[in-house]
Parts: sequence; C-alpha cells; structure tokens
Amino acid sequence: MTAYLKRSAVLGALARRTITSSHKPAAVAATAFQPATDSGPIFPPFFPSEPKRPELISLQIPGPKAKAAIQDLDQYFDTRSLNMMADYHKSIGNYIVDPDGNRLLDVYAQIASIPVGYNNPDLLALANTPEMISSLVNRPALGNFPQSDWASILKGGVLKVAPKGLDKVFTAMAGSDANEIAMKAAFMWKRQQERGGPGVDFSPEEIKSVMNNAAPGSPQYSIMSFRGGFHGRTFGVLSTTRSKPIHKLDIPAFDWPQAPFPSLKYPLDQHAKENAEEEARCLAEAEDIIKNFHHPVAAIIIEPVQSEGGDNHASPSFFRGIRELTTRNNILLIVDEVQTGVGATGKFWAHEHWNLPTPPDMVTFSKKAQTAGYYYGKSELRPNKPYRQFNTWMGDPTKAILFRGIVDIIERLDLVQNTARVGDYLFAGLENLAQRYPNQIQNLRGKGQGTFIAFDSPRRDEVLRKAKGEGVNLGGSGERAVRLRPMLVFQEHHG
Amino acid sequence: MTAYLKRSAVLGALARRTITSSHKPAAVAATAFQPATDSGPIFPPFFPSEPKRPELISLQIPGPKAKAAIQDLDQYFDTRSLNMMADYHKSIGNYIVDPDGNRLLDVYAQIASIPVGYNNPDLLALANTPEMISSLVNRPALGNFPQSDWASILKGGVLKVAPKGLDKVFTAMAGSDANEIAMKAAFMWKRQQERGGPGVDFSPEEIKSVMNNAAPGSPQYSIMSFRGGFHGRTFGVLSTTRSKPIHKLDIPAFDWPQAPFPSLKYPLDQHAKENAEEEARCLAEAEDIIKNFHHPVAAIIIEPVQSEGGDNHASPSFFRGIRELTTRNNILLIVDEVQTGVGATGKFWAHEHWNLPTPPDMVTFSKKAQTAGYYYGKSELRPNKPYRQFNTWMGDPTKAILFRGIVDIIERLDLVQNTARVGDYLFAGLENLAQRYPNQIQNLRGKGQGTFIAFDSPRRDEVLRKAKGEGVNLGGSGERAVRLRPMLVFQEHHG
Repeated sequence: MTAYLKRSAVLGALARRTITSSHKPAAVAATAFQPATDSGPIFPPFFPSEPKRPELISLQIPGPKAKAAIQDLDQYFDTRSLNMMADYHKSIGNYIVDPDGNRLLDVYAQIASIPVGYNNPDLLALANTPEMISSLVNRPALGNFPQSDWASILKGGVLKVAPKGLDKVFTAMAGSDANEIAMKAAFMWKRQQERGGPGVDFSPEEIKSVMNNAAPGSPQYSIMSFRGGFHGRTFGVLSTTRSKPIHKLDIPAFDWPQAPFPSLKYPLDQHAKENAEEEARCLAEAEDIIKNFHHPVAAIIIEPVQSEGGDNHASPSFFRGIRELTTRNNILLIVDEVQTGVGATGKFWAHEHWNLPTPPDMVTFSKKAQTAGYYYGKSELRPNKPYRQFNTWMGDPTKAILFRGIVDIIERLDLVQNTARVGDYLFAGLENLAQRYPNQIQNLRGKGQGTFIAFDSPRRDEVLRKAKGEGVNLGGSGERAVRLRPMLVFQEHHG
Repeated sequence: MTAYLKRSAVLGALARRTITSSHKPAAVAATAFQPATDSGPIFPPFFPSEPKRPELISLQIPGPKAKAAIQDLDQYFDTRSLNMMADYHKSIGNYIVDPDGNRLLDVYAQIASIPVGYNNPDLLALANTPEMISSLVNRPALGNFPQSDWASILKGGVLKVAPKGLDKVFTAMAGSDANEIAMKAAFMWKRQQERGGPGVDFSPEEIKSVMNNAAPGSPQYSIMSFRGGFHGRTFGVLSTTRSKPIHKLDIPAFDWPQAPFPSLKYPLDQHAKENAEEEARCLAEAEDIIKNFHHPVAAIIIEPVQSEGGDNHASPSFFRGIRELTTRNNILLIVDEVQTGVGATGKFWAHEHWNLPTPPDMVTFSKKAQTAGYYYGKSELRPNKPYRQFNTWMGDPTKAILFRGIVDIIERLDLVQNTARVGDYLFAGLENLAQRYPNQIQNLRGKGQGTFIAFDSPRRDEVLRKAKGEGVNLGGSGERAVRLRPMLVFQEHHG
C-alpha cells in the first residue's frame, strides 16, 4: 500500500508540480491524501502485469518518433486535434504508451471510452473467438438479415444491463446516431399521438409535403436541450449541442430551444439554499419554454452530468423535477448517458442516482459500451411501420459482443463498486488539495459520483500540460475544467 | 461451364418461375442467355469450396427455426424490416444460409455491403492478426490519440484506392455520417470563403448567434440534392434524401432544395434525343435553383446511380454538366459513392465513367469499404481550426484494416474487371429475357455499369418473393425496381 502511495500519480502530479509549480518529493505531496486511504483495506491490482508508474523517455511529448509519425499522417488526415500519438500494442491496463516509449497513466481513456484497460486479457481472448471473427468479416445488415445469435448477444450484454423499465433497444454505432435515432423516435411518437394512434395512416398531405421537407409531413417540432449540453455533431444532435461555438460555427441548425442548466455553487453544503433556488429557476424556465416555444417540443434531451460542457452537475431533485415536467406536459425525456453510462459514476447508469418516480422514456449509450443505441420501454416508442427507424447496418455485432465481454468483466470484478470507492478516495484527496490550494482547485465537484470528478482551474491548459510532463494524461472540458475520466479498472494505487 | 450454366441461378430463376409463372427445366430457360457465355473463356470459381447451387430445406422461408428466433428477437429489437434471418457461420462465398439450413444465392449482399464473399478465407485470417485484435480491444479516439500505424493502415487501403485527385480523407463510421461530415465541410468552406479565407476569425456576432442556432453563426445555407436521391437518415442527410416518404415522415427537415433527376427512357439507343433533352432540362432547372433558391446553396450532393430511389441512371454527359455548373457557380460537388463505390459498376469508383474535367470536390464512401468517410483534394476543405470536424472515434481502425484486406483481394483477383465482365454477361442475358417477356422486364438499365443492373417489374414484390422460393435472394428499390447487387466475387456460373 505504501509503495503505491509513494507514486500516487494523479494527486501526486497535481500536488508536486502542476498546482504548486514546485517539484517536491512525491512522498511529501502524498501526505495530502494519506488519511483517506490508510484506514481502508488493501486492493490487489486488477492488472498484475501493469507497470508500477509512468515513465518518460523523450525530453518532451511528442518525442522524435511520434513527431515524424504525426508529420506523415498529417498529409492525409487532419492532426490538428491530436493530443498524443499512441502505440496500443504496448499500452496496458491504465497505461498508454507512445511511439517513443513514453508511458503515461491514462486518466482520460480515449475521451472516457475505454472501460476495462488496454489489452485487457479477457477481451483479447474474446477477440480471437469464431463468434467475433465471423461477425467481423460477415457484417450483417441487422434490420434486414440479422444473425441468428443476435438476440443472445443482446441478452448477454446490452439487455442484461438495460436501465430498469427499459427492456428494448435500437442499436446504433456511436453517440451521435444513438441520440439522433432517439430524437427521431420522439418526433414519430409525438405525431402519432396527435394523429390518433399507431393505426391511423399518414394523410395524403403529409405524404406529399414531406418530400419537399415541409409541414405537415416534416413538422416544425423541436427538441429542447440545455445550455452547456453536448449531444454530438451530426446536424440533428448538433442543433441540441450548446457547449462551445467551435462545434457549431458555419453549420445550419434547427430553430430549437435551450433551457438554462443550473449553475451550482461549491461546496454544495455551504450553498444549499441558493442552489435550490437556482434549480427551481431553471425548471420554471424549462417549463415556460415547453409551454410557449413557437415550435412544439417533442422531447427533452439531457446529460446526467454535462461533460463536454464543463462537468456541470445538478441535484437528483432537479432531475426529478425534469421528469415531472415532461410527464405533466406530455413530452418525452431522453437521458443521454453516452459519457456517464457504464459505471463511471459509481452506478451502472448515472440516472440511478436520481430515484425517479418513472424511468426515463429513452436512455442513450455509447463510448465505454463500444456499441451504441437507445433503450426504451414503452411499445409506442417502436415506430408503427417498418423502415421508419432503419439504416444499412443498424449497429455492429462486433461491438455488441465486446460490450457483452465488458459487462462480464464489470460483474466479475465488481467494477461499479470499485469505481464508487475509488471515486470517494480521489475526491477526498482532491478536497484536501483544494483546501491547500484554493486558487488552483476551484468548484471541486462529483462527490459520491464515482470517478466522475472535476474541478476548475484558472490555469487549466497549463495544468493539463504539466500533468503530461509528470506522466499523467488528463482531460479538460468546457472553458476551465479539469475532468477525471479514468477507466473502471482505475484503483487507489493509481490515484 | 455447361455444368454451371445448367444452374444459372439468377437468370434461371427469373426465367423459370418468377417471370413466366411456370416451372420449366432450368436448361430450357438457360438457353435464353447461352450465347453471351459460350464464346467466352472459362473462369475458375473464386471459392472452390462454395456449393454449386442453392438448396431449400424448409417448406418456406422463414422455416420453423428462423420463425422461433425471430419471435424471440422481436421482444427486444424491432424485426418488422426483417427479410431473412441468417447463420453467418455457415454462409460461404455468394451463398447465405439461414437457421433452417436453407442456402440462397445472395444477390443482395447485405444491401450491397459485402464485397468479397461470406467467410472469405483471407479476411478470416486477417481478423485473427495481432493488429486487428489490438484495434478491436483498444479502440482509439482517432482525432486525439491515433494509433501510430494509422497512416500505414490508411495508405494500404483507404488511400491506395483514393479517387484521382483526392488524396486526403476524413474517416467516419457509415454512409450517413460520411455524408454529414462532407456537408459540414462544404458549409465551412463556403462561409470561410465569404469571410475572406482561413486566416479570418469568426466575428463576435457569429460566435454569439451560433449558440442560439441562429444566423450568422448558423447560416441558413443549403445543400441541393436530387429528386429520388438517398443519402442517409440522420437529420442532415435525411433533408437531402428524396426517395420515399416513409424515410422522412414526422421528422423535421431543413428547408433545402431538390432538383429534378433525369427520367430516362429505355432502351437508351432508341431514345437518344429525348433523353438528351431531359438531361438538359434537369441541368437548367438545377442551375436555376442554385442561382435563385432563398437559402444559398453551398454544395450539390448526388449519387452516380440513384440506388435506393429505384436505380435511376443518367449519362456521363449529365454528370459533366453538373460538374460544370458547380464550378461556374462556385459551389462544391459531393459525389455519394456509398453504394456505387468499390468496384460494383466495373470501375473502382462509378464517377470514373464520367471523364470529368476536374475531380469531384468530395467523394463519400462506405458499405463494401466497411469503413466510411469522405475523400477530398483541396486543402481548403480541411477546416481551418482543430475540433471543427471531430468526434470521439472518427471512424474505426478495425474497419479500415478490413478495407485494406478487401483492397488486396480486389487487386489480386482483379475483381473490378471481373465485375465489368460478369455485368456484361448478366446484362446480355437479361436483355434476352426482356425481349421474350417485355411486360415483365421493363426499362432494363445498367449496360456497361458492371453488375449495377436493374429493371422494373409491375409485379416487383412477387418477383422478389418467387426468386427467394427458387433460392435466390434479390433486392428491390424504389417502387418497382428489381436491383442486382451481387458481391464482387459473383461469377458467370452464378448468373
């Protein structure tokens, strides 16, 4: 235990150089959070073969080999968003290795999309099975010609972890299309209700106008999202994305409304009253939009934690309020769990923290699931005719098989519980650091939310750069948030 | 050769029962197209272990095992668009096998997305390599953390077959998002030009308005598509899709324009003058829209053959006219080769048939490529800042590796040439049948376009059903077209 603590990479790196701008010995910095761990049990590492610590080989990242590779790639493929080139053959567990042999503790995990470690031995074995190989080389059009074991693949993974009350699924390929098809389902549901039910056919006027992209066939209806929200980048979801201008500039958008998302003050226990008022204000404004916006709202789409927008949280009571107002106004609630889902918040789905009176109407997923889609429960959310919710591939069996393997590992190693516990440990350590460096670690948030932890820093980009110089790959979000987005196999000794 | 001819599955099935409604011996029907092949050389089968003919086991499809499996699946996953459940472990080459053991010649190939046969031995071997396995279990966020061999994977496949003049690529996951990101690139290009070049920054007004989905940040610009076109089903591309109401009903759409697509008369050589007039009319109307539509047109998106819309063809001269009018009006030409690309028309890219004076600005691809994306040449089509064209995964290395393997096989077996030759053979056989049954085979089209062949039939759905009863899986498109969409390994003896 002590050996691990000496090299507490994340907290150590933040304490050592990133925050304090000095280079104290790790053991000194580590005292900042020792109390949180010394009382606990010892947790054996999930990856016995994982290295004990980061290792930096080149003077800087990228080193000479990565630089040459980036220069080559850039001729054909835009590298201007590149953070770090990687050699995944050499990466292992929580450690990412680059072409120069630099080995970093990865607390960003491919934008929160790697669940159980690089080169996880169970997934390597799964990748080598006849089932996986057949699905890879014989990719089916799942809507027309599904493979005969498709139900069994779904039941072993995607459906096994379905949110309570949502036992059906439309599969997709990534978060963007998962959210787009959920939004399409909402529009179909709304219009079907107005039309008088699934048995009532489209009118000749609808059939004619829709081919001109005009009402009533293409209704001027809307999806309401929240300021700071991020739901993807294809044209439909981009119209609901409200995190940063750079995502949206120059792209035509639907005239859809946005409600304010609560701007909470931290620490929460010192601002209970004003935070409750802020949430009440946002709920009231959301309801006002639903009642009055010039394009009728068919659904709300919302993230449990606004991730790309800066790791903005709201209380379970706020989300219960959202559920109530969707029910009261006869619109649908789509919970976008693309980043929050699959265990990172210490529950399998983040909305389990809310204790909702009724389940969300749809829950979308992707990233750590490798596959994607939306869960639903009500049969009215399955369109009333074939080919309304359809495309060539409708998902990808190889990714659904991977998710089944990931679910197996999560259950066997109790990784949701692990993440809850490690999150508490990390939060306590950061709380301690925040008390020492209140100007550098501000608005620490994510208590009780597993490892879904973030804080603001006025020198955010410098923090990220310096952390990398310490061998820790950290991510940012919004304008000034540092977000922890480790894998589910991240443990105390990595902290 | 004669042995193969006796069981000429596609033409035989059409001749035997589907068209004539009688059940003549195959050899008699086969005489309809013998002349086209007897003079040619013998082509050894690509799949020596492939069965010689279809085999039907159950009284109908679906048989009892498939029925039970479909009923089970339908509880969780919509099966209303299901055509046939399949057992891909048992499928081989051009033959698809279902859970009851029925074996059909597959001339639809997962909606034209299987290029080199089920369980192709070279792809099976590729699926089992460390490179593939690592890419499968360590899926990178390619924009942020590309794998160090990403350039080499692209160069061996995606870039090796890049259309002439288009040496750069943005990768994607499927046809829809490939077309959406190409459209986004077009809007960025148009606005950048108006702004004064890549160095001119966004105005404060743009940055503010875009967060409200309003102009000038979200400009009310448009993409022009063609009546009958199909470009996918996410919100942006769905606004350009104009094939059938069922794809579009109830979904909000952008107010974007559509131009008429030529409605040609067949046989082409008997209607040269009126077809030329029809194409001139469509070009004139397209230009009129570009000059006058109330939302400025940034780009045209067009398929070389309108596939989902009913296999509608136009002449190379029409497409040269399209290229000329985009150049003249300073807008971009996006050629959607999602279905036509990768060899099916007897050229690697269908637009190679056109002899364009300058390459298209962007060419999109997916389906048989397994991966997806858009090719481009001009550096102005790479957005001027990072994170403008971005998402978590930005494609999928496993699919790009598969495409590299597919390209190797295509080159080694000369499959583009094979498809050109087999297409001529099929076309000649169908022409012969059309002369005998002019009421059943109408508007035969796709001459010289490889196996990208279609005809209209007033009893289309019955033709498809009866062909299945003969062991041939055929696809339809539009309202009454039967479309041949075989794999690239389809040979004369399958015909």
